Amino acid sequence: MSKRADINYKLVLRIIGFLLMVEGGFMFLGIPFSLYYCGNTCLSLLYSGLITCGAGTLLFVTFKQNSNKNIGKREGYIIVTFTWVVTSFFGILPFILSGVIPDFTDAFFETISGFTTTGASILTDIESVPKGILFWRSTTHWIGGMGIIVLSVAILPVLGIGGIQLFVAEMPGPTPDKLHPRITQTAKRLWGIYVLFTFIEAGLLMLGGMNLFDALCHAFGTMATGGFSTQNDSIAGFSPYIQYVIIFFMIIAGTNFTLHYFVLHGRLKKVWQNEEYRYYIYLIGLATVIITASIIIITNKEFEQSFRDSLFMVVSIITTTGYVTSDYLLWPGMLWFIIFLLMFVGGSAGSTGGGMKVIRQLLLLKNSGQELKRLLHPQAIIPVRFNRKSVSRDIIFKVMAFFLIYMIVFAAGTLVMSILGLDFQSAIGATAASLGNIGPGIGSVGPVENYANIPDFGKWFLSFLMLLGRLELFTVLIIFTPVFWKK
Amino acid sequence: MSKRADINYKLVLRIIGFLLMVEGGFMFLGIPFSLYYCGNTCLSLLYSGLITCGAGTLLFVTFKQNSNKNIGKREGYIIVTFTWVVTSFFGILPFILSGVIPDFTDAFFETISGFTTTGASILTDIESVPKGILFWRSTTHWIGGMGIIVLSVAILPVLGIGGIQLFVAEMPGPTPDKLHPRITQTAKRLWGIYVLFTFIEAGLLMLGGMNLFDALCHAFGTMATGGFSTQNDSIAGFSPYIQYVIIFFMIIAGTNFTLHYFVLHGRLKKVWQNEEYRYYIYLIGLATVIITASIIIITNKEFEQSFRDSLFMVVSIITTTGYVTSDYLLWPGMLWFIIFLLMFVGGSAGSTGGGMKVIRQLLLLKNSGQELKRLLHPQAIIPVRFNRKSVSRDIIFKVMAFFLIYMIVFAAGTLVMSILGLDFQSAIGATAASLGNIGPGIGSVGPVENYANIPDFGKWFLSFLMLLGRLELFTVLIIFTPVFWKK
Repeated sequence: MSKRADINYKLVLRIIGFLLMVEGGFMFLGIPFSLYYCGNTCLSLLYSGLITCGAGTLLFVTFKQNSNKNIGKREGYIIVTFTWVVTSFFGILPFILSGVIPDFTDAFFETISGFTTTGASILTDIESVPKGILFWRSTTHWIGGMGIIVLSVAILPVLGIGGIQLFVAEMPGPTPDKLHPRITQTAKRLWGIYVLFTFIEAGLLMLGGMNLFDALCHAFGTMATGGFSTQNDSIAGFSPYIQYVIIFFMIIAGTNFTLHYFVLHGRLKKVWQNEEYRYYIYLIGLATVIITASIIIITNKEFEQSFRDSLFMVVSIITTTGYVTSDYLLWPGMLWFIIFLLMFVGGSAGSTGGGMKVIRQLLLLKNSGQELKRLLHPQAIIPVRFNRKSVSRDIIFKVMAFFLIYMIVFAAGTLVMSILGLDFQSAIGATAASLGNIGPGIGSVGPVENYANIPDFGKWFLSFLMLLGRLELFTVLIIFTPVFWKK
Repeated sequence: MSKRADINYKLVLRIIGFLLMVEGGFMFLGIPFSLYYCGNTCLSLLYSGLITCGAGTLLFVTFKQNSNKNIGKREGYIIVTFTWVVTSFFGILPFILSGVIPDFTDAFFETISGFTTTGASILTDIESVPKGILFWRSTTHWIGGMGIIVLSVAILPVLGIGGIQLFVAEMPGPTPDKLHPRITQTAKRLWGIYVLFTFIEAGLLMLGGMNLFDALCHAFGTMATGGFSTQNDSIAGFSPYIQYVIIFFMIIAGTNFTLHYFVLHGRLKKVWQNEEYRYYIYLIGLATVIITASIIIITNKEFEQSFRDSLFMVVSIITTTGYVTSDYLLWPGMLWFIIFLLMFVGGSAGSTGGGMKVIRQLLLLKNSGQELKRLLHPQAIIPVRFNRKSVSRDIIFKVMAFFLIYMIVFAAGTLVMSILGLDFQSAIGATAASLGNIGPGIGSVGPVENYANIPDFGKWFLSFLMLLGRLELFTVLIIFTPVFWKK
């Protein structure tokens, strides 16, 4: 018998306790809105915050840091996965206590959809929900986005998941070998940028006539690439100005945050030199041109609106935000198939976007081209180049393995959803949209539908897929392998 | 400017000429059936055969072997690809001259569907077609199957495509370093087995009451994993005995032919030691059990028929044959989704089956598991094991690259088909079924439908996909790269 692995559970619980305290604090933020809009949800937010803070403090104090401060890889995986799960379990409190979502499964689905910045909803009449609770709903996105920034910039590269370590070398920070200060400092800088952009966006939205509440909720949803709106028809009812503002900030949110850091420090050249960014912009441009032209030719719609609708939906899907201004399922089949394909691209690495990530798709495409050359010249070393440097074969290997596992999970997920009775398109759509943290899918979970009619087991399963997708698959899957628990 | 590559075109043309002579010879084989069934197609078969033989002889004699006998890799790719294309262009003659398929596009689609052992058809009333022409139609499968055996056993492993070289080490033959005699001898041995099984199957089918004509046509279609039948309802109208015989030989045809060689030489242990074979059988068993049980539970059908229908369709799809006994699209969604997933498995390496091949899927699954272990132990060497040996990282790399290019072609193909106006399911189905050389897909190209209503451009495009899939993608794609034509 092999021994069980040493895992520092105390430290894990202490850290989760700390994060619960933070979560509880965020719950109080909705109270002013409750009061202002004369909602009767103050107490539910207050109680939820107190319970969450209390539970957090209990954990934090009980497992007072013992001498063993060592965070190994195993602790890293457990902390990351359980943070998202535990905060989601506490995050349901405002929904349950206020009676807005009385069902446990529904409340959990809505909350984890928020924290994973997916934005899939089970609410059918969003506008009837008290403002305080809606604010908490949008806050889950914003907290999730903050978590993702730390995760993708500081933790995942260290764990070496799916080739994402590639862009670490590009990152601003003291020195690459001093891990701890680097993580802290990088995270703080990028959080600063995240907060800054959120408030600039909210300000610009208010200039367009939104009130503070709507502006904050939508800024949270945009910068986290989440997608929860405060309106039943998402962004469709807002003015073109507001739609363009949201488009702009969705693009920002789907960009590697380290590039924003460079821009703010005047190193603009760095940005256009970044191949991932160029490819991301080209892809948005190409898809938008094709869809705009097709809509104009086929439906004879006016140019500006066709362009805006196309650009909005392309950006919303590729960045995995999931805001909606038009029902792409009413477009001709080939157009929404393009939208469907974009669901497998996702945002840039180091952004708050989900999905497979632009950088991976780019490396995979490049490697496929090189593979043909390698066939003709098997002795030659024909590397994939990215940002003018050769990418090691080992990283390409990891990226391919990631793609494969993504496809295996996608196929298995679709099978499970079809066992639950969903038709082919809906099963594919719900799986792709959950795994990619997008929100709206195709079929019965399309842009103007929601997830209310999915059976309970399906909601739990899709919640699991959201978690898998958000944490880059491996972080969660590895916990289910026997080898993880062995020494 | 880089120089153009030296390509020995004379030799290429001479070899293609030789193969055309063989093709022409095969055309004459349908004449006896024309005469017996009093069809008026003798002359069209005769003329077709003469034209094809004539053109072949002309090429063969004109490009009399010059001193340069060297077949390099480039010549290899060109010969393989153009053999399939050129023989398909000549193979349309019987259809055109007899007036059975007057349209050029349709005739080409039907012929390349035959030669690639796909079995997708544009004929809506097969039973009205003269027997001589139907015999030629089934013969294209049989010739295609012979071509595939040489290709997959002798040529592709030498070219090193997509990790298929793995099983070469397992192959019977003189010595691995003597390439030429090895290729010739191996191919001859395996052809012997192919011919033997074809005639055994035809004999067994005749024992079940089929006439010689039907028995030969169906044996051709089975052993080549093709799928052309002589009946409008494929195999559905035949007796259970005949269906079981065809199931048995489909399994045989989807098995690595070198294993048959071992069995015929009494080395039975070799077979069960082969992991690919075990996985292939397990997969068939698992899918059949699930589908049978579900059909019985959901529709209350009788056991034997449910079992036979399930087994038949599972085997038919996984081996990429495409014979049909029941319309799986009428099954509950989750069951035909299982069938759809099997379309991406395909036959074993070294069989006549198409698709991605069982061995690749197995290696990919194993590697995905190992990748999780590698994350925890990045310094350790954690190889994928196959047939009790470590598989080199390089082969896994190639297999993953193959899977990726397959998925890219699949996505691009579906996009093209949806641009042509096919709905989502049909576009996915037509692409998967053509690329995987299966025949029946899902949607409007399902098991009881056919390809007659696809627009002309779509037929040419699907023909291209059949060729791509049959020749393991790289063989064809490489010809389109600029580097191929440079020195």
